Amino acid sequence: MSASNHSSAGASSPSAPSAPPPPAVPKSRIPFCPACGSPTKLAVPDGDEKMRAVCSSCGRVHYENPKMVVGCLVEHDNKVLLCRRKIEPAYGLWTLPAGYLEVGESAAEGASRETLEEACADVEIVSPFAQLDIPLIGQSYIIFRARMKTPSFSPGSESLECELFALDDIPFDSLAFSSIIVTLRMYIEDVKAGNIKFHYCTINKRIGAGPSDLRSFDIDNHLAVRETSAQQSHWSSIELVMGEGAFGHRMASGHICGRLFKLLLEL
Amino acid sequence: MSASNHSSAGASSPSAPSAPPPPAVPKSRIPFCPACGSPTKLAVPDGDEKMRAVCSSCGRVHYENPKMVVGCLVEHDNKVLLCRRKIEPAYGLWTLPAGYLEVGESAAEGASRETLEEACADVEIVSPFAQLDIPLIGQSYIIFRARMKTPSFSPGSESLECELFALDDIPFDSLAFSSIIVTLRMYIEDVKAGNIKFHYCTINKRIGAGPSDLRSFDIDNHLAVRETSAQQSHWSSIELVMGEGAFGHRMASGHICGRLFKLLLEL
Ligand SMILES: [Zn+2]
Ligand SMILES: [Zn+2]
Repeated sequence: MSASNHSSAGASSPSAPSAPPPPAVPKSRIPFCPACGSPTKLAVPDGDEKMRAVCSSCGRVHYENPKMVVGCLVEHDNKVLLCRRKIEPAYGLWTLPAGYLEVGESAAEGASRETLEEACADVEIVSPFAQLDIPLIGQSYIIFRARMKTPSFSPGSESLECELFALDDIPFDSLAFSSIIVTLRMYIEDVKAGNIKFHYCTINKRIGAGPSDLRSFDIDNHLAVRETSAQQSHWSSIELVMGEGAFGHRMASGHICGRLFKLLLEL
Repeated sequence: MSASNHSSAGASSPSAPSAPPPPAVPKSRIPFCPACGSPTKLAVPDGDEKMRAVCSSCGRVHYENPKMVVGCLVEHDNKVLLCRRKIEPAYGLWTLPAGYLEVGESAAEGASRETLEEACADVEIVSPFAQLDIPLIGQSYIIFRARMKTPSFSPGSESLECELFALDDIPFDSLAFSSIIVTLRMYIEDVKAGNIKFHYCTINKRIGAGPSDLRSFDIDNHLAVRETSAQQSHWSSIELVMGEGAFGHRMASGHICGRLFKLLLEL
């Protein structure tokens, strides 16, 4: 059960070309019990189906939970507010003001707080706009449309600069995260169609892609709530491959979501 | 900083009537470092504004994050599928199939998985229906409309029974959680209006109310995405007080959301 051999694997010599890689040893991401400080071991608890970090002393089971990232799409004079990141990851790239939701606040409150912290903008939440799940890294983005109570903003401590961008001027080549690209593409499409909806989708990064690696990701299960009754786009899978600063596209297996596909063709 | 005096406070004699209560000592909910096993202490890290559990040995900062609860509103023949809980809290009460989202799955996948586990129903996700934040207990409910791929269900290991209920027959007096009451009330209103929307709201439990305590909660910030453009209900605050198995209602400070208020009057 111990993953200690693996922890020191970096010091070992490279395998001979013909040697198969060693089997992956499951490694707990919670090696010590947060309740009592004893080491945990990975085991499948009774009535469960997955390996969990179980305390070797007090027996408590510790679960890993996805984290919610909350943020605002601040609208002003047909422009949207972006912040250029002063922190890693994605230092120097543009993003919507967003950050981790805290215990004790609602998603709307958290999104407003992040906007105040990163863009010094005091906003009022207008409407939920999107939920974008990124299962591989255990994150769900919850994005709200918002408006400034007074038209005033300036870079907070985590931002190099903040700027309002017309929708045709958004720096898609310099956006920080796949979630921000997808959010802004959906938003532009909605605005051009004159019908702003609520969107749900899953962003499946390729294994090995870092949080700021925009070169490849899939968009799955795009569902949008729109007119008169809740309808959905087809469950979809579109594979995006970026190259030379522009989107390329090719179809993956699965149903193509026509609307999003059209959106990509327009790029 | 230590909360150890407080941990043993239960053994001390009660205070004299005139003695003020002792000041609340902040107590870390992460007393030991999950990374190295050393005790943590509560401190405000540089550049932060809140008390965090900081490891006394390795210096890592450990954050508490809200948890996402994902579930399905399964529609069949103008009825919805409810499960009667075989586990605490709220043993014996009715709920929508729902549970904690896991790392590595999307909210839609998690909601389908929970429906399979609790109601043995294999469902297809239709549309996002609601996000209900409960800041006091650090939970966000994400509810999807869903349909059974084949009309078949039966109680899973955590359910006493599963049943399809016509909307007029939903056992509101025997629902497990405030989130389920609010979800079903919004759904019934949408169905009766012929317009199923996406809803965002915050459920503020009164301090001291347990997860299964339905007697009192506030609904704030109700926003709904509906026809042709994203409009929102007024930011609202409605105070619900349950008594004798029926909703009473009285207004709290803040803007009243007329639609939800009307809904309550219909109870
Ligand atoms: Zn322990
Ligand atoms: Zn530590």
